[in-house]
Amino acid sequence: MCGVIGLISDRPVVQDLLYGMFALQHRGQDAAGVAVFGSTHYVKKGKGLVAQIFDDEIISADGCVGVGHTRYPTAGTNGAHAAHPFVIESSSKIAAVHNGNITNYLDIREALKKRGIFPDSDTDAEMLSKVFAGHYEHSQDVFSAVSSIMETMKGSYSIVIAIDKIGLLAFRDPYGFRPLVLGRKGMSYCFASESVAFESLGFKRIRDVEPGEAVFIDLNLNVVSCKIQERPTAHCMFEWVYFARPDSHIDGRSVYNARLKLGRQLAKRWTTPIDVVIAVPDTARTAAAAFAEAIGVKYREGLIKNRYIGRTFIMPTQSKRESSVRLKLNPIIASVNGRRVAVVDDSIVRGTTSRKIVQMLRDAGAAEVHFISTCPPIKNPCHYGIDFPTRGELIASDKTEDEICKEIGADSLTYQTIADVEISCKKQNLCMACLNGVYPSPISSEQMVMLAEQRIEARKC
Amino acid sequence: MCGVIGLISDRPVVQDLLYGMFALQHRGQDAAGVAVFGSTHYVKKGKGLVAQIFDDEIISADGCVGVGHTRYPTAGTNGAHAAHPFVIESSSKIAAVHNGNITNYLDIREALKKRGIFPDSDTDAEMLSKVFAGHYEHSQDVFSAVSSIMETMKGSYSIVIAIDKIGLLAFRDPYGFRPLVLGRKGMSYCFASESVAFESLGFKRIRDVEPGEAVFIDLNLNVVSCKIQERPTAHCMFEWVYFARPDSHIDGRSVYNARLKLGRQLAKRWTTPIDVVIAVPDTARTAAAAFAEAIGVKYREGLIKNRYIGRTFIMPTQSKRESSVRLKLNPIIASVNGRRVAVVDDSIVRGTTSRKIVQMLRDAGAAEVHFISTCPPIKNPCHYGIDFPTRGELIASDKTEDEICKEIGADSLTYQTIADVEISCKKQNLCMACLNGVYPSPISSEQMVMLAEQRIEARKC
Amino acid sequence: MCGVIGLISDRPVVQDLLYGMFALQHRGQDAAGVAVFGSTHYVKKGKGLVAQIFDDEIISADGCVGVGHTRYPTAGTNGAHAAHPFVIESSSKIAAVHNGNITNYLDIREALKKRGIFPDSDTDAEMLSKVFAGHYEHSQDVFSAVSSIMETMKGSYSIVIAIDKIGLLAFRDPYGFRPLVLGRKGMSYCFASESVAFESLGFKRIRDVEPGEAVFIDLNLNVVSCKIQERPTAHCMFEWVYFARPDSHIDGRSVYNARLKLGRQLAKRWTTPIDVVIAVPDTARTAAAAFAEAIGVKYREGLIKNRYIGRTFIMPTQSKRESSVRLKLNPIIASVNGRRVAVVDDSIVRGTTSRKIVQMLRDAGAAEVHFISTCPPIKNPCHYGIDFPTRGELIASDKTEDEICKEIGADSLTYQTIADVEISCKKQNLCMACLNGVYPSPISSEQMVMLAEQRIEARKC
Amino acid sequence: MCGVIGLISDRPVVQDLLYGMFALQHRGQDAAGVAVFGSTHYVKKGKGLVAQIFDDEIISADGCVGVGHTRYPTAGTNGAHAAHPFVIESSSKIAAVHNGNITNYLDIREALKKRGIFPDSDTDAEMLSKVFAGHYEHSQDVFSAVSSIMETMKGSYSIVIAIDKIGLLAFRDPYGFRPLVLGRKGMSYCFASESVAFESLGFKRIRDVEPGEAVFIDLNLNVVSCKIQERPTAHCMFEWVYFARPDSHIDGRSVYNARLKLGRQLAKRWTTPIDVVIAVPDTARTAAAAFAEAIGVKYREGLIKNRYIGRTFIMPTQSKRESSVRLKLNPIIASVNGRRVAVVDDSIVRGTTSRKIVQMLRDAGAAEVHFISTCPPIKNPCHYGIDFPTRGELIASDKTEDEICKEIGADSLTYQTIADVEISCKKQNLCMACLNGVYPSPISSEQMVMLAEQRIEARKC
Repeated sequence: MCGVIGLISDRPVVQDLLYGMFALQHRGQDAAGVAVFGSTHYVKKGKGLVAQIFDDEIISADGCVGVGHTRYPTAGTNGAHAAHPFVIESSSKIAAVHNGNITNYLDIREALKKRGIFPDSDTDAEMLSKVFAGHYEHSQDVFSAVSSIMETMKGSYSIVIAIDKIGLLAFRDPYGFRPLVLGRKGMSYCFASESVAFESLGFKRIRDVEPGEAVFIDLNLNVVSCKIQERPTAHCMFEWVYFARPDSHIDGRSVYNARLKLGRQLAKRWTTPIDVVIAVPDTARTAAAAFAEAIGVKYREGLIKNRYIGRTFIMPTQSKRESSVRLKLNPIIASVNGRRVAVVDDSIVRGTTSRKIVQMLRDAGAAEVHFISTCPPIKNPCHYGIDFPTRGELIASDKTEDEICKEIGADSLTYQTIADVEISCKKQNLCMACLNGVYPSPISSEQMVMLAEQRIEARKC
Repeated sequence: MCGVIGLISDRPVVQDLLYGMFALQHRGQDAAGVAVFGSTHYVKKGKGLVAQIFDDEIISADGCVGVGHTRYPTAGTNGAHAAHPFVIESSSKIAAVHNGNITNYLDIREALKKRGIFPDSDTDAEMLSKVFAGHYEHSQDVFSAVSSIMETMKGSYSIVIAIDKIGLLAFRDPYGFRPLVLGRKGMSYCFASESVAFESLGFKRIRDVEPGEAVFIDLNLNVVSCKIQERPTAHCMFEWVYFARPDSHIDGRSVYNARLKLGRQLAKRWTTPIDVVIAVPDTARTAAAAFAEAIGVKYREGLIKNRYIGRTFIMPTQSKRESSVRLKLNPIIASVNGRRVAVVDDSIVRGTTSRKIVQMLRDAGAAEVHFISTCPPIKNPCHYGIDFPTRGELIASDKTEDEICKEIGADSLTYQTIADVEISCKKQNLCMACLNGVYPSPISSEQMVMLAEQRIEARKC
Repeated sequence: MCGVIGLISDRPVVQDLLYGMFALQHRGQDAAGVAVFGSTHYVKKGKGLVAQIFDDEIISADGCVGVGHTRYPTAGTNGAHAAHPFVIESSSKIAAVHNGNITNYLDIREALKKRGIFPDSDTDAEMLSKVFAGHYEHSQDVFSAVSSIMETMKGSYSIVIAIDKIGLLAFRDPYGFRPLVLGRKGMSYCFASESVAFESLGFKRIRDVEPGEAVFIDLNLNVVSCKIQERPTAHCMFEWVYFARPDSHIDGRSVYNARLKLGRQLAKRWTTPIDVVIAVPDTARTAAAAFAEAIGVKYREGLIKNRYIGRTFIMPTQSKRESSVRLKLNPIIASVNGRRVAVVDDSIVRGTTSRKIVQMLRDAGAAEVHFISTCPPIKNPCHYGIDFPTRGELIASDKTEDEICKEIGADSLTYQTIADVEISCKKQNLCMACLNGVYPSPISSEQMVMLAEQRIEARKC
Repeated sequence: MCGVIGLISDRPVVQDLLYGMFALQHRGQDAAGVAVFGSTHYVKKGKGLVAQIFDDEIISADGCVGVGHTRYPTAGTNGAHAAHPFVIESSSKIAAVHNGNITNYLDIREALKKRGIFPDSDTDAEMLSKVFAGHYEHSQDVFSAVSSIMETMKGSYSIVIAIDKIGLLAFRDPYGFRPLVLGRKGMSYCFASESVAFESLGFKRIRDVEPGEAVFIDLNLNVVSCKIQERPTAHCMFEWVYFARPDSHIDGRSVYNARLKLGRQLAKRWTTPIDVVIAVPDTARTAAAAFAEAIGVKYREGLIKNRYIGRTFIMPTQSKRESSVRLKLNPIIASVNGRRVAVVDDSIVRGTTSRKIVQMLRDAGAAEVHFISTCPPIKNPCHYGIDFPTRGELIASDKTEDEICKEIGADSLTYQTIADVEISCKKQNLCMACLNGVYPSPISSEQMVMLAEQRIEARKC
C-alpha cells in the first residue's frame, strides 16, 4: 500500500504536493519522493518520512505539473533506490507513481530483458514506467499507451504520471482494487489516493477515477477521460476496515461511517454481559465506540499508544518480539481493573499481538477479556498490495475461531462476518480474497508461489 | 517541560534507559541525551527525537548507572549544545538531568562568573550541574550538596544525577512543582518523571519522591532518603489537565481518572441542547467522552490529527499560520454536518487555534459550535517550566469569557472552574499561578521581566 | 580523463581494488565508485575522493571480480549519479568503467530511445554499458559484443567490465587514445589505466592492452585475447606531458624519462643568460630540473603549492579568480629575489594562471622572468577526453607566441616543438589534435559543435 | 604542533582567517576551528581538514576580530570536542587558540577542580583559556592576565586570543619554542604561526612576536606591546628541519635557505662515490638538491608520493604496517635502476619507514643505497609539542649509527651534526632537547613519566 498524488495547475504545485503527501503519509512510511517539471526539473526521493527527506531546496521547484509518492514496501527491496517516482528520460520526461501490485511482473521483466531493456531496481513501478514510456514514445498518445498497459499488466494499480511539457495522466486498473480520486481548486487539479489530501489543501473532491478509466489533463487544464477496460469492480474491503484514514471518502462511502457501521453490526449479535468496552488504538476506536453505544456499555480508553517508538536497539540477551508490544501499548489500569472488558481491534493477522494485549489487560486486573475483530478471519495472502504474511503465518488459515480464541487467551472471540462487511461498506463485489480466497484478477499458481517467495525475500533485506 | 529518568542496577542499564525515554518522549521532543557510567563512559545527546539520535553504537554502553533526558525548550536557546545531560569532569564524573526552571538563574550565573566559573550554555541545567559538582567536590556528601542547592536555587526542579563509581541521586524542589517517581524491578531502581516509564520496562512504582526530599542509591543498591526542606506543596495542575500521559499516576492521582472527572464536572453545569460531542485530539478525548456520557449525548470522532506533519516548506507567497492548523487537523464531515456540536479542548492559550477549529467545523456543516475548555482561563505566564507565551499573547489575560467566545467565533464558550480542577485532581494547594496569579515560590518583579524577555529571546532563535 | 581498474583473482579483490584506486586518484578527483561481484554484490559510488566515499562496510565485499573508477568530469553533468561503475541488471550482472569520450554519443542515444531504451544519466559510460549488456544478452559472447561496440562507437575508450559469474573483460578503442595495462601477481590479474596501480599492490606489469584489442579472463583465470579492429595508433601525447604519474610506464615509454627528455630538448635551443631555473609544481618539476642541468644553471624550488586548498567561500565583494592562484602558489623569495628566473610549466591553456605566476615572481623580486612550456601551443579542443576549454578560450588559438608572451607579461616565452614531443615520447603517430588540429578518429563538424556546447553546458552545473 | 592565527581589522576578517588557515594546514590536519566576534558570534570547529569543516554559512560571520586553529593532536584525545578555539562565556567573550604544550598541565588542573572549575576536555588549551578568562574577569587588564599565565604555566605556548568588543591579544612563552609572527595589510593586523599565512592574504610580515612578549591590538587598531618575562631563547630547531613550510621566514631565518644549507653542510663531509641523489618527498627535496649540486652528482626524482591516501580499510588477513609505505611511496625505476643511490630524508624517527624505503629502492634495482638524514639522531622525547614516540621507540635512543645503518639495511648512513644544524639555522640557543636531552624549561621526572603515559594513552583513542 502506498499513497500517490499528482497535481497540475497554472502555478507552481510543489507546496500543495508536499502538503498532500503529509496527508497521505499513513499509506506508507518507508520512503517518499517527488518529481516536478518546470523550468528546471526537481526530483528527490529517499528513505523515511516526508518530513525527513525534503529540505528548503525544494522551494526552488517552480514546475506546474508534478507527482509525489509515499511508499510502503511490497514488491522489491526496501532500499532508497526503490523509492518512487521513477523518472524516464524519454523525449518527454516521464515521472510515474504507483499504488498496487503487478502480479505478472516477473514474466514481463524477462520479456523486456530480451529486448535490451534492463531494470535498475526490483520494483514493478520502475518496469511499469519504462513500458509506459516506450509505448508513449512510439504512439505519442496517452490513451493508446494506457491501453497497452492494461492489456499486458495484471494485478492492481492506481497510477499518476507527469509528462514534461505535456500534462498529467491518471488511471486505475479495471477492477479498481486501490482507490484514486480527482479534486479541484480554482485552476488546479489533483489526483490522490484518498480525499484527505484535498481537504488539507482546500481542494474539493470531484469524483473517483473509475476502474479501467484513464483521465488526462493537459497544460491548458483541459480534462479528457477515456474508459479503456470494463470489468466487474473489486474494491479492496481493507481500505475501509483498516487502511484508509477515517476522514476519507472512498468510492462513494465515508470510511468513518463504514467503521461506525462495523461496530453496530457487531453489536447486533452481542449477548455477553460486560462492564466496559475499550479499543486497540487508533484504527479500532471508531467501531469500538459505536459498539459500546449500541450495547449500552461504557466506552473507555484502556490502552495508550506510544507514538514515538522508532527503531530500538536490542541487547544480545533480550528477545525482540517480547518487548515491542509492551513499548508500544500501555494499559490504563483505572479503566480495566476488576472489570469485564471487551477489547475491539481492527483485525487479527498472526495473533501474537492479540495474545499480548489479552495478557496485558489481565495483568492490569481485567476480570474477563473478550476479544472482538472488526474484520472477518484473514485466511489467505493478498496479491494486490497489502503486505500480509504468507498463509502459514496467518492464524486463521488453519484454525477454527475456538482454537484462535484459546491461542490468544481470551474469554471469548467475536469476528465480524463477511456479510456485515458488505453492509458496512455499502458495497457488493468487494475484493475479499484474503477472507474467501476468491482472487478477482486471475493469478496462476506458479505466480502465486513466486510472489510469495519474492515477498519473503524482500522482508529479509 | 522535560522528561527525566535515571537508572541504577547490578546489570547494564542503557536499554531500559532508552525504553524509558521513549515512554517520556511526550514531555519533550526538541532534544534528548543519555549518560551511562561503566568501564567506558557513554555520553550522547542531540537535537530531535530519541529515535533519531541514537544508533547501534549505544549497545556498547555497559554501565550500571545512568541518566536520560527528553528536552522541551524553556530557558536557553534551542541548540544541540543545550541538550542534557551535562557531564561535569569533577573527581567523580557527574551527569545531571533536570525538569523545571530556576527563577534566579541570572543572579547565580553572575555570582559564578565572579569566581572564574563560566557557563558553556545558556541553560539553568548546566549551571545547576556545575554548582552541584562544586559542592560535592568539597563535601563529598550528596545530601550536603543538595542542601546547598535548595538554599540558593529558586523555582522548580526535579533532578536526577548519576555519579560515576558512587551512585544515583534524585531530588525535587520543596514545592514539588514537577513530578518525580521511584520504581523498582528486582535489583534495578529507576527514577522518572512519570510512572509510564516503569510500565514499559516491567518496573513497579514504589512511591513519589516527596517535595524537598533527596533519595540516594549507592552501587550496592542501598537506598537512603533525606527530607531536606519542607514547604507547602504546589504541584502543577497542568500535569493532569494536559501534560502528563493519561496512563500515568502522579502524586497519588491517576491522570486518566482526573480527566474523566474534568469532563463530568463540566457536565454538571451543562444545559444547552446539542446533538454530538467531539474532542480536539488527543488530550481532550478522555474528558470529552466522559462529558458526553454524563449529559447523554453521542460522542463522535470529529477531528482527525495528522501525526506526520513535520517542518513544512513555505513559499514566499503563502502565510504560514493560515495553513498549519488545516494541515494538522481535518474534520470528519459525517460526524458534524447538520449537527449542533460541542467541541472539547484541553485549554485555550492564544485562541488562534480555537478560532480555526470553530471555523473548520462550521465549514464542515456544523449547525452550532459550542466550545468547551477543560482548563480554566489561563491569564498569567508560568515561571516554573510551561512555555506559555507572555501575558499579552494570552487571550484570557485581558478579555472576559464573552469577549473570548466572540473572538473564537463560537456559539457558546464554557470554561472549567478552578474549584472543579481541585476536585478533579483530588488536591488542594495545587500551583495555579497561570490561572490565579499566585506564584508559590516568590519571584521578584525584576526577575519576572527578565524571565519574560529571556523567553521571548529564546523563541527568536 | 578518468582512472579505470579491474581485478580478478582466486581470492577477494576489494582491498587491491581500493589501493589501486588510490594510485589512480590523480586521473580524476570528482567522483569514484566500485562494483564487486561475490556471494553478495557490493556497489558503491559517490562524489569526492576515494578516501571520502568508502567506509568500513566495504570489507564485507567478498567477490573475486570487480571494477573501480576515479572520475574526472568530461561529458555529462557532475552529479553523483554520473559516477561509474554503471551496473546493468542483465541475466549476468554487468559493471563497466570507462575512460575516454564517445564522440557520436548523441546519435546513438537517440537511436536507443526509439527502441524503448532510455538513459538514466547524461553519460556516455551508462549508454556504453547498456549497449554492451544488450549485445551480450543476445550473443552470450564477449568478443562479439565488443565487436558490435567497436563498429558503432566512435572516439576514445579504455573500458573494463566485470561480468558476474563469468569473468573480467577489458578493451581499448582501435586508436589507443587512452592507456590500459595488464598486470599480474600470483593468481590475480589486474587491468588499470596506469602501471602505478600495480606497484603499490605488488603486481608486475605484463603488457599494454593493444589498441583495438579485447582481453577476457574467466573465473578460472584463463586469459583469452582477440584483436578486434586495426587502425593506425594515436596515443594521446598529453599523458606523457601532463596527465600520467611520472612513475608510470605507458605504451612502452617511461613517463619520467619522457619528461626528462622534454626538458633536455628545450635546453638544446636555449641561449638566454639566466641565474636560476624553477618549476611550477608538481608536473613540471622533472623537465625543469633536466633543463637546468642541461644548460648548467642552478635549479631551485621557487614556488610552493598549498595542497590543502579546497572549496573556498567567497565574500560578495571579492573576486574569485584574483585570489585563487595566490592561495595555491606562494613564491620562495630567497630563490628568485634579484635573479633572472626561467620558470617551467607543463603547458599554457588559458594563459591566466601563467600571467599571475609571472606577476607573483616579479613581486617577489625576480629581475627577469622567462616562461617555458614543456608542451607546444594548444590551439584546438580535445574531443577524446581532456577537458580543455573551447577554442575561444585557448590563448594559443588565435595568438602568436609573441602576443602570448606579451599577454602573460614574461620577458621571453619558449614553447616545446611538436617534433621534440615525438622525440621525447619516442613515438610517432601520437594524437596531437589539440596542437595540430588533426583528429585521428573522424568527427563531423556538427558533432564538434554539439560536443562543445555539451561541455560548456556541463561546466555550468 | 598546530597552526594558530588571529585577525583584527576595520572590516570582516572571516575570509582572510580561512585563507590563512589553508596556508597553515600543514601544521595540523586533525581538526580545525574558527571564532569570529561581530554582531553575531560565529564559532565552528570539527574534525578534519579546513576544506571539510566549513560551509557557506561561514560568510554570515561579520565580525572584525577572530581567531583560527589547525590542530595536530598532542595532549588530549583526538575527539572533535578537543578542537580549538575554546570560547569562554566570561563578561567579555573570549576565544583562544594555542600551539605548544603545557608541561605542568595536570598539576594546574587539579588545583582548578578544588576551586569548582571543571574541565570539559583533556586539553591544555581549554584549561589555559579558562585560567586566562578568570584572571581577565578579575583584573580587566590583558597584560596582567598574561603575566599570571606566564607565572603558572610551564612549557611551550604561542597563543592568540580574541576578546569580544575589546581586541586581539597574542603572546609567546618566554623561551619562544614555537613561532609567532605579526603581519599587516592596510587597516588589518594578523598574528600567525608562520609568515606563509600573510603572503596568500597580501599581508606583509612586520616582525616576530618575541619570546615572553605580549602584543595587544584594540578595536581602534592601536598596538601595545609588553615584554612580560625574559629567558634565554630556545627556538625549536625542528621547525626549520621539518615542520615549517619552506616559504616561511621564522625568527629571522628563511626556512628554505636553512634547508639548502643543511644539504650543503652534509656535502662537505661526503666522500662516497655515487651516481644519483634522490629525496624522500616532500620536505627533504630542498636539502637533497643542494647536496647533489654541492657534490656534483645528478639530482633525480626517485620516489613519488601519493597525495590521496586516506584512511584505508584493512582486511583481517593483511598487515597494516606492511602495506602503508608501499601505498604512499612508489619508486621511479628509471631513476635508480643499476645506480648507486644516495637518498636524503629529513629525519629518522622509528627507522621502520627508512628500512622500507631502502628495500623499495633495492627492489627497483638500485646498486647501492646510501641513507642521509638532514637531522641529527633523535634520542629523546619532545615535551614541547612535537609528537615523537616514547624513548623506547626512537631508534637512535639506544643504538649507534652503525647499528641503525644495519637495521635499516643501507650501505651507509650519514647523519647531520648538531653543530651543522646551528650553522644552517644561523642560531645558537636552539631547543635541541630531542637531540641532546637538555630541556630548556625544566620538567620534573614525575611530570615526564606522566606526560609520556598521557601521550601513549591519547594514541590509543
